[in-house]
Amino acid sequence: MPETRSLTVGNLGESGLLARILPRLQGAAALVGPGDDAALIAAPGGAFVFTVDTLVENQDFRLRWPSGFESSGFDVGWKSAAQNLSDVNAMGACATAAVISLTLPPETPVHWVEDLAEGFSAAMRELGASHCAIAGGDLGRGSELSITAALTGALVTESPVLRSGAQPGDILAVHGVLGVAAAGLALLDSSIQTENWTVEQQEIVLGQRRPKPPLDAGPLAAKSGASAMMDISDGLFKDAHRLALASDVEIDINQESLIKDLERLLPIAQTLETEPLAWVISGGEDHGLLATFPPRTELPEGFRKVGTVHAAATSETKNRVSLDGDSLNVSAGFDHFEV
Amino acid sequence: MPETRSLTVGNLGESGLLARILPRLQGAAALVGPGDDAALIAAPGGAFVFTVDTLVENQDFRLRWPSGFESSGFDVGWKSAAQNLSDVNAMGACATAAVISLTLPPETPVHWVEDLAEGFSAAMRELGASHCAIAGGDLGRGSELSITAALTGALVTESPVLRSGAQPGDILAVHGVLGVAAAGLALLDSSIQTENWTVEQQEIVLGQRRPKPPLDAGPLAAKSGASAMMDISDGLFKDAHRLALASDVEIDINQESLIKDLERLLPIAQTLETEPLAWVISGGEDHGLLATFPPRTELPEGFRKVGTVHAAATSETKNRVSLDGDSLNVSAGFDHFEV
Repeated sequence: MPETRSLTVGNLGESGLLARILPRLQGAAALVGPGDDAALIAAPGGAFVFTVDTLVENQDFRLRWPSGFESSGFDVGWKSAAQNLSDVNAMGACATAAVISLTLPPETPVHWVEDLAEGFSAAMRELGASHCAIAGGDLGRGSELSITAALTGALVTESPVLRSGAQPGDILAVHGVLGVAAAGLALLDSSIQTENWTVEQQEIVLGQRRPKPPLDAGPLAAKSGASAMMDISDGLFKDAHRLALASDVEIDINQESLIKDLERLLPIAQTLETEPLAWVISGGEDHGLLATFPPRTELPEGFRKVGTVHAAATSETKNRVSLDGDSLNVSAGFDHFEV
Repeated sequence: MPETRSLTVGNLGESGLLARILPRLQGAAALVGPGDDAALIAAPGGAFVFTVDTLVENQDFRLRWPSGFESSGFDVGWKSAAQNLSDVNAMGACATAAVISLTLPPETPVHWVEDLAEGFSAAMRELGASHCAIAGGDLGRGSELSITAALTGALVTESPVLRSGAQPGDILAVHGVLGVAAAGLALLDSSIQTENWTVEQQEIVLGQRRPKPPLDAGPLAAKSGASAMMDISDGLFKDAHRLALASDVEIDINQESLIKDLERLLPIAQTLETEPLAWVISGGEDHGLLATFPPRTELPEGFRKVGTVHAAATSETKNRVSLDGDSLNVSAGFDHFEV
């Protein structure tokens, strides 16, 4: 470990650390730089989007869960592809190429790594990105298993849809499920052993193991005039707050619009003796889309209205996210360095 | 750890593992797929190159070495940028954009991560890639420190220079130093404490800490008609063997051409009571270029002839690399999973 000179990464948290790193990363300017789901790069033949994401054992997945469930390489490969594809999707772009870097402990079974390659490829194919090249990668040794994928993508419209374009009066809309991956995580982490799971419970866990970002919906929303968009990777409220900050607006979410999400998760919430609301508003990893559209837009297929965009008010409540008008603690949601 | 079902990654080694993974990574075809320094991707506005590399603590660098030397974040950031830039360079391309993913133990000092960002940026600038955007990235937590960078690049010629283009009769040439990074590694790993290093020894260690891939030389070689090219990341002989395999040729290296490399490292070899030849022929991480040129080509500036390409002979010696006609064990060189 490096010499500890006062402040550590764990003290500072993810966004604090980013604020310290970004000013020090000084290359040529990107058209859209750090801070959106993916970067936008100027290139001779047209701009392209570029993103990277890492999954680390025991942080982003477990090989064996308290419920006794064992994650296959296939699941981890799928998840790596899905979360990177989701970032490209959220820019309103289609993936063009992927490279993969694997860090593997030497005792990792070869079949597990083979499964990982198959899961990555299957996600590409089944989610609708079979036009994306899987172009190469890097293999290395480490004491913990991790997989990093970087993806490039091509825009389907003239400009990407950013987090910063929401306007007061816009409709806030969601595509995809909310809270399923979080409920699945809770079951994986529970003492209810995998052999006792019902079919419904297995399906919810599948939402955590193999998320399905709606890859048609990002480009469709871009073509339909979405004013802002991002993928929901860290929870509806945390991500809505990021969008509110980037667009300098406030967002009010209508709890009534979440009823189906809540109902879907009620049985598993009762089994685990909890409430489903935290999963639905703060649960990450579903990789649906959060988008805003100008008032009176007919929402593209699969999107549903969940709230409204308002002008940022006084400095005290600036950029807040509320539920039926009540302020919420937007720190709810995932932070990699929170203890 | 995953269930151990017979064969592990450690048993199989890097190239064996690659042979098992690649057929399972089935996406759309890249123009140039896995197996070269970087992939070449078809895109609407013209093909681009794409590469990824990971550095893992205690595998690719140490935070504290047996000599007492402590690697700064700056060194590790520099190295990450340099080795990725080198892969782009080896295709005869110029870097256009980089994304970075950091995995950090929570106890990592913030200043160390700030230094890493500065080292990455400094390498981009000082090596001559200041036109490359540093576009964003990903931050996550892990028990060991690692940094992954993915880079895209633009070709300067119609087609990239691959490993597979060498022809019998071609000149084998090298650009850059050989064995310096390996000698630096040996000193870092030695019991000679850092405070006792001479200025010359410090400079050799600097070659290991902050390699300088010659970024003008890759595009220059491409324009000068290089028939094959790759970066020397795992040692002259191991990399020459890869080139010989890809091009289906044999390569003979002329030891006389390595005399200056050997002489440069003689003092430090004497100090460490060893011979410099192993460093020069098997030492990796210098990130110079290995290229072949048609006979009678006037070598571009900075390249020097080190050998000759021959037709592949009988199956017994097929694709061999020799030193003054004597076969060598080409397994010499770095393998991530070798014990």
